[in-house]
Amino acid sequence: MKFYDYFRSSAAYRLRIALNLKGLEPERSFVHLRRREQSAPDYLKLNPQGLVPALIDDDGTVLTQSMAIIEYLDETRPKPPLMPSDPAGRARVRAISQAISCDIHPLNNLRVLRQLGTLGLAEEIRNGPQWYQHWVAIGFTAVEALLADHPATGRYCHGDAPTMADCCLVPQIFNATRFGTEIADYPTIKRVFDALMDLPAVFDAQPSHQPDAEA
Amino acid sequence: MKFYDYFRSSAAYRLRIALNLKGLEPERSFVHLRRREQSAPDYLKLNPQGLVPALIDDDGTVLTQSMAIIEYLDETRPKPPLMPSDPAGRARVRAISQAISCDIHPLNNLRVLRQLGTLGLAEEIRNGPQWYQHWVAIGFTAVEALLADHPATGRYCHGDAPTMADCCLVPQIFNATRFGTEIADYPTIKRVFDALMDLPAVFDAQPSHQPDAEA
Repeated sequence: MKFYDYFRSSAAYRLRIALNLKGLEPERSFVHLRRREQSAPDYLKLNPQGLVPALIDDDGTVLTQSMAIIEYLDETRPKPPLMPSDPAGRARVRAISQAISCDIHPLNNLRVLRQLGTLGLAEEIRNGPQWYQHWVAIGFTAVEALLADHPATGRYCHGDAPTMADCCLVPQIFNATRFGTEIADYPTIKRVFDALMDLPAVFDAQPSHQPDAEA
Repeated sequence: MKFYDYFRSSAAYRLRIALNLKGLEPERSFVHLRRREQSAPDYLKLNPQGLVPALIDDDGTVLTQSMAIIEYLDETRPKPPLMPSDPAGRARVRAISQAISCDIHPLNNLRVLRQLGTLGLAEEIRNGPQWYQHWVAIGFTAVEALLADHPATGRYCHGDAPTMADCCLVPQIFNATRFGTEIADYPTIKRVFDALMDLPAVFDAQPSHQPDAEA
C-alpha cells in the first residue's frame, strides 16, 4: 500500500488518523503542496484532481478523496471499525464528516486562500473574521450543535469509539487553531478533541510529527 | 418521510434525483434560501447547519447532508442500488461525488458568492473566470479525466446504471451552465449528462420543474 501525503494537508491528515487507528503502515510518498508537486504530470496521472491524499492499495487500486478512502479502508480492513453498524449511525457520521469536509475545509484550503490573494484581498481579510474565521465560526457552531444536542454523541463524535467523523474533526481543529480560532468557544468539540488527542493513533498523526514537517 | 427542498439548491437537487430513481415520494416542504428561511429557528432546530436538503424518515430519524442521505436511502431502500457492490467501485463513486460536492460546489454556492460580494468583489469577478468559472474549470477538467480515462465509466459515471456520482454530477452541470460554462468542452461529462437526462427520474428533478420554482 502506498500513501501520498503532505504534513499540512487536512485531508491527508484525516487519512493519517484512520490509517493509525487501523494499525496500517503504508509506504509513504510526500507531495509538497507549496512547491506545487501535486501538479507534476506523474502525480496528475495518478490523481487528476492534483490533490492529496491518494492511496494505492496492494492490488493496484488507486484511491482518491479522503472520506472515500477511509470508507474503503473500513470495508476492506474492518477492524477496528470507523463506521457505526446501523444505517442511521452511518448517516450521522457521514453527515458530521461532510459538514466539515464539504462546508468548512474547501473554503479555507491553500488553493482558495491563494486565489483570494490573486483577486486582491489582503491577508488580514483572507485569514480573518471576514473569510477564514467566518466559515470556521459558522461551521463549528453547527458541528457543536450537531454534537451537543444529540444522544449518540459519546466520548467521541459518535459513541465511545472513534469514527470517520473524528478523523475529519481533528485536522479541522488544528487548521482553525493555526488561524486563531479559540476552540474553547465550542465546549463539546473541545471535549471530544481532548479525548481524541489522548489516543496515540490520533496524537501521532499531527502535522508537526510527520517526516516531511517544516517549521 | 418528509423532504426539505429548494428548487435551486444543487444539494437538494442531488437528493431529488436519488429519490426519483428509487421511486420514493416523500412529503415535501420548501425552504426558500433567498428569503433565508433556512435560518428560521424551527428549521435550525431540525438542521443546525441551516442548509438543505434535510430528510425525516418515517421513524423520525433526521438526516442531513445530501451524500449522507443518499447512502442512507441506498442502505434502507436498496432497490435500485445507487452504489456499486464492490469496495473499489463504491470508493470510485464516492470519490467522484466528493470531487464535485467538496471541491466544486462549496466554493460556488449562494452563501459564498454573497460573502464575496460583502468583501467588495464585483459580480463579474464572483461569477466569472476568476472565481465561479475558475473552480468549475478546475473541477470539471479533473472529473472529465476521472471519467474519460477509467475503464469502469459506462453509460453513466460508473457502469451502466446511475449511481450517487450521477446524482451529484447533474446538478453541478445545471449550476455551471447557468453561469456560462460550456459543457461541450468536457466530452465525457457531456455524454454522461445527455444519457442521464434521458431518464425521466433525472429529467423530472430539474429546478424549473419543481413546485417552488421561480423564473
